Amino acid sequence: MIDRNALLAMPPIVTRHSLKKRDTILYALGVGEQSLDFVYEEGLRALPTMAVILGYPGFFWRDPALGADWAKILHGEQALTLHAELPAEGEIIGETCIEQIWDKGPEKGAIACVTREIRMNDGTPLATARGTTVLRGDGGCGGPADGAPAPHPIPDRAPDIRIPLATHANQALIYRLSGDLNPLHIDPGVAEGAGFPRPILHGLCTYGVVGRALLQALAGGNPARLKRMDARFSAPVYPGETIETQIWHEADGQAAFRARAVERDLIVLTNGLAEVA
Amino acid sequence: MIDRNALLAMPPIVTRHSLKKRDTILYALGVGEQSLDFVYEEGLRALPTMAVILGYPGFFWRDPALGADWAKILHGEQALTLHAELPAEGEIIGETCIEQIWDKGPEKGAIACVTREIRMNDGTPLATARGTTVLRGDGGCGGPADGAPAPHPIPDRAPDIRIPLATHANQALIYRLSGDLNPLHIDPGVAEGAGFPRPILHGLCTYGVVGRALLQALAGGNPARLKRMDARFSAPVYPGETIETQIWHEADGQAAFRARAVERDLIVLTNGLAEVA
Repeated sequence: MIDRNALLAMPPIVTRHSLKKRDTILYALGVGEQSLDFVYEEGLRALPTMAVILGYPGFFWRDPALGADWAKILHGEQALTLHAELPAEGEIIGETCIEQIWDKGPEKGAIACVTREIRMNDGTPLATARGTTVLRGDGGCGGPADGAPAPHPIPDRAPDIRIPLATHANQALIYRLSGDLNPLHIDPGVAEGAGFPRPILHGLCTYGVVGRALLQALAGGNPARLKRMDARFSAPVYPGETIETQIWHEADGQAAFRARAVERDLIVLTNGLAEVA
Repeated sequence: MIDRNALLAMPPIVTRHSLKKRDTILYALGVGEQSLDFVYEEGLRALPTMAVILGYPGFFWRDPALGADWAKILHGEQALTLHAELPAEGEIIGETCIEQIWDKGPEKGAIACVTREIRMNDGTPLATARGTTVLRGDGGCGGPADGAPAPHPIPDRAPDIRIPLATHANQALIYRLSGDLNPLHIDPGVAEGAGFPRPILHGLCTYGVVGRALLQALAGGNPARLKRMDARFSAPVYPGETIETQIWHEADGQAAFRARAVERDLIVLTNGLAEVA
């Protein structure tokens, strides 16, 4: 069981990240991208969702000192605000804090809100990433049950745009080389222990695939234009499935979105809010 | 045009390579491998053909000082002798020499024989890699036309074993992150300039795919058992094609092999000689 008070009192984790073009390309391949803009070192640009791996401290929940039932952890939500176009290479600093831990009880588990400020070495702000981690085995740790920000509603009508993107059987194997080595995404034994028939795709890999669809549909493929992308993970995706992003235009420069695993006709990511410039 | 005498007089290129498990996994994914033995850091082993990227000096022919018509370069042959099972991580040294340059005339080009001794930092020998580079635009540079070792003959009967392995549309994009950034394998303009309708797969990626088939068919999947793998590239492979390795048993522990691009029914690699312990 986690020690909620100790976790909330932890000092920020400062992570220095020397980003190479090879890493930027590997991230793009990890989320299934193949356009030369994002995978070729000549004129290389970074996908905006790459912010989620910049200055990333790794899957720190596996540290026995934290007491978490780490094999039962899932990614709950991911919010990202982009302050500038991400560089394709450079010296980057991430500062990660556990901001809040909600307790949904022994059945549902605990939910930790983890935020990360990402900036260049010279202080230039790049992005703010805010994620929730669902600690399915740590419910009953104490703390409030409520208070999390309300999720963005999905309109009750057919989507304006649908963009299906394929994933490949080796998608998680590539994606994990960007830093999230949680064995849930590769080791059949660990996946089984966590209640899945086989390893599941990283939530943040799904998030990156959906980000590619938003970039294409809302920002004309220009990574500088995506400013915000918030979403909630609602079901795991298995590598090899097709992820269909569904988009609803809302106010100018704003859209709601969700994503469906086509082969199982299952919503895997929802409550999406995107903003473009 | 290359200056043949200057190239032969070049001192060896010494390349220090700090191999990480991530690199070993990335190489395996680059040649389409997905077995946990080769892509998961727990119990990770290296594919034997990874020797071709260890202590690799990069695509040095692009250096304008060498005078080569680099966009017209193709890989001719690759021979590999393994002295030990390759480590999944460690400090490795490669020492690369241009051993000989044959001149096949202005029509056919020049052929450079490049050898590399690969060893651990402590001197332990790992492998000897010997490749030929076909400089299609540098024929007429002088030097002997003949003297290259005779290629291993392929038996005149049906193969004993056939192993088809798929490649993926992004195979060259992944493979090139192991160090061979020749734009021929990603840039449509460069590919067209070299006479190809689209970017082709690295010869050494094909070689790695064939190595996986040999490992499976001849060595029971045990990378310590593959001792030698020599072959000649006979036609380019396009990413996404299926590579069928055809194998003939010969003397004990020895086999001949070649490979076919299934979709075009074309032999892409031939004169193969494999030895297993």
